Amino acid sequence: MFIRVASAACLLMSATAYAQDDALISEESAATARELMQRGLESDTGYEIVRSLTTEVGPRLGGSEQEARARDWAVQMFTELGFENVRVEPFEMPYWDRGSIELRIVEPFPQMLIGSALGGSAATPQNGLERDIVFFDSFDALRDAPDDGSLEGRIAYVNDRMISAQTGAGYGPANAKRQFAWLEAEARGAAAVIIRSVGTDSHRFPHTGMMSTPNASSVAAGRHSRAVIDYLNAEHPDFNENRVWSSIPAVAVSAPDADQIERIHGAGETLRAHLSVVAGWRGMRQSGNVIAEIPGRELPDEVVLIGAHLDSWDEATGAIDDGAGVGIVTAAAHLIGQLPRAPRRTIRVVLFGAEEVGLLGAFAYARQNADEIGNIVLASESDFGAGLVWSLTSGTSDEGTAFLDETQRIISPLGIIRGDRANRGGGPDIIPLAMQGVPVFRLTQDGTDYFDLHHTPDDTFDKIDPDELAQNVAAWAAVVWLAADSDVEFRTQDE
Amino acid sequence: MFIRVASAACLLMSATAYAQDDALISEESAATARELMQRGLESDTGYEIVRSLTTEVGPRLGGSEQEARARDWAVQMFTELGFENVRVEPFEMPYWDRGSIELRIVEPFPQMLIGSALGGSAATPQNGLERDIVFFDSFDALRDAPDDGSLEGRIAYVNDRMISAQTGAGYGPANAKRQFAWLEAEARGAAAVIIRSVGTDSHRFPHTGMMSTPNASSVAAGRHSRAVIDYLNAEHPDFNENRVWSSIPAVAVSAPDADQIERIHGAGETLRAHLSVVAGWRGMRQSGNVIAEIPGRELPDEVVLIGAHLDSWDEATGAIDDGAGVGIVTAAAHLIGQLPRAPRRTIRVVLFGAEEVGLLGAFAYARQNADEIGNIVLASESDFGAGLVWSLTSGTSDEGTAFLDETQRIISPLGIIRGDRANRGGGPDIIPLAMQGVPVFRLTQDGTDYFDLHHTPDDTFDKIDPDELAQNVAAWAAVVWLAADSDVEFRTQDE
Repeated sequence: MFIRVASAACLLMSATAYAQDDALISEESAATARELMQRGLESDTGYEIVRSLTTEVGPRLGGSEQEARARDWAVQMFTELGFENVRVEPFEMPYWDRGSIELRIVEPFPQMLIGSALGGSAATPQNGLERDIVFFDSFDALRDAPDDGSLEGRIAYVNDRMISAQTGAGYGPANAKRQFAWLEAEARGAAAVIIRSVGTDSHRFPHTGMMSTPNASSVAAGRHSRAVIDYLNAEHPDFNENRVWSSIPAVAVSAPDADQIERIHGAGETLRAHLSVVAGWRGMRQSGNVIAEIPGRELPDEVVLIGAHLDSWDEATGAIDDGAGVGIVTAAAHLIGQLPRAPRRTIRVVLFGAEEVGLLGAFAYARQNADEIGNIVLASESDFGAGLVWSLTSGTSDEGTAFLDETQRIISPLGIIRGDRANRGGGPDIIPLAMQGVPVFRLTQDGTDYFDLHHTPDDTFDKIDPDELAQNVAAWAAVVWLAADSDVEFRTQDE
Repeated sequence: MFIRVASAACLLMSATAYAQDDALISEESAATARELMQRGLESDTGYEIVRSLTTEVGPRLGGSEQEARARDWAVQMFTELGFENVRVEPFEMPYWDRGSIELRIVEPFPQMLIGSALGGSAATPQNGLERDIVFFDSFDALRDAPDDGSLEGRIAYVNDRMISAQTGAGYGPANAKRQFAWLEAEARGAAAVIIRSVGTDSHRFPHTGMMSTPNASSVAAGRHSRAVIDYLNAEHPDFNENRVWSSIPAVAVSAPDADQIERIHGAGETLRAHLSVVAGWRGMRQSGNVIAEIPGRELPDEVVLIGAHLDSWDEATGAIDDGAGVGIVTAAAHLIGQLPRAPRRTIRVVLFGAEEVGLLGAFAYARQNADEIGNIVLASESDFGAGLVWSLTSGTSDEGTAFLDETQRIISPLGIIRGDRANRGGGPDIIPLAMQGVPVFRLTQDGTDYFDLHHTPDDTFDKIDPDELAQNVAAWAAVVWLAADSDVEFRTQDE
């Protein structure tokens, strides 16, 4: 509510404040941006889209039948909202299924724990396995552990804690164990690996998420220990061409369960666990990207691409990840589509499939649209929940940077500062485009609480604040309008 | 921390403030009480007891093997802490097992929901059942529904919301559906009943808890509809002598899942669910109460009884319910036991078994110790988490009331006011004693957040604030010391 009141006043005051002779943004276009901001703050379209998606589709794992229903839902939604060129671009993908899990301490203090398989986890033998746990304070400790047989046949447990930060900066460091602990454990002969959940909450919700596979760049970046490189060369000599997947079960336990393991470990006795995981790869399935457009009035071949991902993890309804993004970018584009005059350039909304399971939709989009990536003048994704936008970052030409400087002054009444001007991050699904030189911006959100919910069963619709989501819609509508209504060259010359 | 600082100053200031000639509490006894308060605030014994119980035993459902381990743990703890007359008083009890559950919406929007069987729930047929849901806004709406066949073979869903209150006052009204919705549904031919969880959180944790069975007093109190009375008379004509248990599955869904059901119901289409529950009664098991004493120096046969319950629900480690109570009363008694001189009367700590599943330990205690209930001069239980004590209530003789008025003035530096002087509530396990005229007091805690965790998988050790728990220990040590070091007659003459 405070946003709406503050903005209504500020928008009037700033109506002519920044009109300068050498401006890259015309006063007419800026006035429309301000109008869009006001309408965005007052609109519940974004919120209603999230409600509809999370209620009528619910969980929608990449490659699942529910994700297919989400595509049908998206096509219908775009059509009802009056978008043009609504289409699905299908692609094939390998499908991993979580199955079920049971994890319990058998010694010294028998009790059940709450865990969740990590994406890509292998299964245990049918009757499970019962093994001693080897405790590592951190992923670094596991990575540095000698390959001396001490993990052979045992369960490696990794205890890193994630820190909470407005930017989500704690995620990368904490996520190293989710990505590669399986590989460090497997290379040392471990029977399974268990990690403290990535995430910042203290509820009994494990944090799932995809494991990563080694590749040339992760090897070059020194992300693997010597033991792993030797193991890969011996066991998977072609690992740089082929994805290498975990052959051991990999599980995250909730923070309170991790605390329990830590306390029991602290008691000094041998910790022994029984683990049963029914998970695995289940062959090829279909996924797809759902696309809709507002054609440009003058430069229809030039595209401002805004995206979000349609899939979610399977254990919740994916409200913040990424129902919110679907609602934000769709509602923003819809507001622009309702204007009496279309912007000069085309606005394309892409709802990517199968993001959670490896950016599969993003890479499929870049592959399937390789011929026209040069037409994308600017791109961004909303995929960080529904928290307030507080910063505009970008990675574009000098002209584009100056244009976005002016843009930030227009959206500043929303409480948004100008952030990093040399930031190539446009969101996860934009990575394959950015790798090919597509200029990007990002409306950075407050993610202090994002990792309390992200990838847990608790990512549900009730967690979204409608006023905060509306501020996102307002910001996106203004920025996307301004970029699409301009002829600014965002692309740097050498790309 | 603020408590410790504030108290240290206040305790000194109040050292002689209330010494009056006609005081029921001697200055010597009061000085000891103040000394105990200070030691309580500085002690981590209570916190360490909760840590030990929740870590080394973990979940401990009444009648389970883990509850038996909790008794062994308690005997060892009491012995190590120097208590006397440490003993277990075993009793037999019927054992209900939760088994497993799967709940999903099949129409109109297929998706999994998170639910938990209520204590006493029957199982579904092995392959589950798939039925339409009949939506009731409230338990009252179900209770008032005509017995017209509209529930026949369907699933009744009851949507009451619990309000949050410092005193936990929302629990009773919200709990009516947990207690008796099964009976209203069963009497109308429903195949199953699902309720919105009792509880005040908005996480995907269902709130479990025992269902109730009708008896003479619940019938007399008009707690059942006409349809239920007719049903009981027809199907269970001897229900006033025998416990009548649910013959249908009864399940609670988490608040976000209840919201989802409400939204889907709001869409206006028929809601159909598949429910599979493997739960049921598994015969007789052994439970027990664990008892320990600090014998009185002058009046050893007069007993101040303080309790907590040793069992917990099965889905968490029972930190706030009721590990906290175990820690608080044990640590308080232990502080008294470390004094150079014992109090005049005996202090008896009773850790009740099988509270959650129907106060079974409490009734067993009253039955097994029927001959000496007259010796219990005052009783209370700590069973409301580890939040700050803010009020001292009581239900005693006039002399006892005056004595506790003085007691409150001594403990007021801890932030405790004098509450209701005609309150016969001493805690759930004290009910059978209070019914026989045992005087009671209660140190009322702030329970604003208690029902965010209570009876959910999230009731774990990390949720306890050690400083708040220490304030409880301080208050209990002072009150119990004063009562035990006195010869005040708390019992009213006519009881």
